[in-house]
Amino acid sequence: MNYRAVETTDEYVARLETGADWRAEIEALAAEVEAEAAWFTALGAVQDAELWFYDQDACEYYPIDLAEPLEVASCVGNVSLLDDDRFAHTHAVLSDPDGIAYAGHLNEATVWAGEVYMRVFEEPLERAYDETTELDLWL
Amino acid sequence: MNYRAVETTDEYVARLETGADWRAEIEALAAEVEAEAAWFTALGAVQDAELWFYDQDACEYYPIDLAEPLEVASCVGNVSLLDDDRFAHTHAVLSDPDGIAYAGHLNEATVWAGEVYMRVFEEPLERAYDETTELDLWL
Amino acid sequence: MNYRAVETTDEYVARLETGADWRAEIEALAAEVEAEAAWFTALGAVQDAELWFYDQDACEYYPIDLAEPLEVASCVGNVSLLDDDRFAHTHAVLSDPDGIAYAGHLNEATVWAGEVYMRVFEEPLERAYDETTELDLWL
Repeated sequence: MNYRAVETTDEYVARLETGADWRAEIEALAAEVEAEAAWFTALGAVQDAELWFYDQDACEYYPIDLAEPLEVASCVGNVSLLDDDRFAHTHAVLSDPDGIAYAGHLNEATVWAGEVYMRVFEEPLERAYDETTELDLWL
Repeated sequence: MNYRAVETTDEYVARLETGADWRAEIEALAAEVEAEAAWFTALGAVQDAELWFYDQDACEYYPIDLAEPLEVASCVGNVSLLDDDRFAHTHAVLSDPDGIAYAGHLNEATVWAGEVYMRVFEEPLERAYDETTELDLWL
Repeated sequence: MNYRAVETTDEYVARLETGADWRAEIEALAAEVEAEAAWFTALGAVQDAELWFYDQDACEYYPIDLAEPLEVASCVGNVSLLDDDRFAHTHAVLSDPDGIAYAGHLNEATVWAGEVYMRVFEEPLERAYDETTELDLWL
């Protein structure tokens, strides 16, 4: 396993803007505070969402469209550099009016309300292509 | 987006008491350590649970009753002041004997076992009515 | 409720190795950095998984086998000492190609890709048998 000790430079709480994109808002926060590596957890609700599932045989992402309001029961992710841009790798668990849970890699979602806690690390995390998984991974 | 840098004053781990209410226990911990702003993650199991789903059209919460023992696969939330009282905004993912997941805003749940990690922030977070979502939001 | 203030000695990010066991990798990280108490959150994907559900009447765990690739939408847990060995108590929310979520206590899972954030606490957490729940709990 690859690992690295990290030093936290700053910690933030943020409220995501109603109507904006969930992941873009997290990337905007990272840009605003000049984070090139960060870890976050979050909760809230969205008006719709597009999850992605990674097919480990085809090594491709497939979208799952959820065209209804959903709670964000859990959101965990991190900020790193991907091709020199900030990328918020974001996984989420969403839930519908019956409490049924849908989950996966969150590509986009329209914020209803979102509360985020982010820790910013001193040293950048940079993603690079991994031949085994065909994913862009850090470390 | 609204955001704020936070300073952590203390960190805690806690074990929730079997038979007590999950969210009330987190609020009791916050009261015990005099936290007026905090972030937490948790895991464990409950004997039953009441989730809430927010209807974004009606701007009302609807309850989802789960009258059976469930694992708490994820719990993320924060403590803030709501009308001068400590409020633990708590989202959770629960699961049944088949591993099926239910999720949402956790209103109440009877603790079977619970393990919590909480960071306490120096400056209070205070909730106020938001006209767009009709929710009480901080920042 | 039992609780304890904790002091973080170090923080780490780690990338779990493809093909290894998810929980064993977290325990290997804890061993590598000599952690006897830690808290972690994680995300990624696995090639298969075995979840456990705790039957609160029988006071026994029952396995739930998931023999397919799944996203790890959320993973929350902690490291403590159990009979003098490091034990990573790990709960996870997994999801399939349709976004359906499965969740519970994660016993084992074959890593596809995994990203972990871990905080190491100065003082060990030690699990001991609890008569009420017949679980090994700390504090």
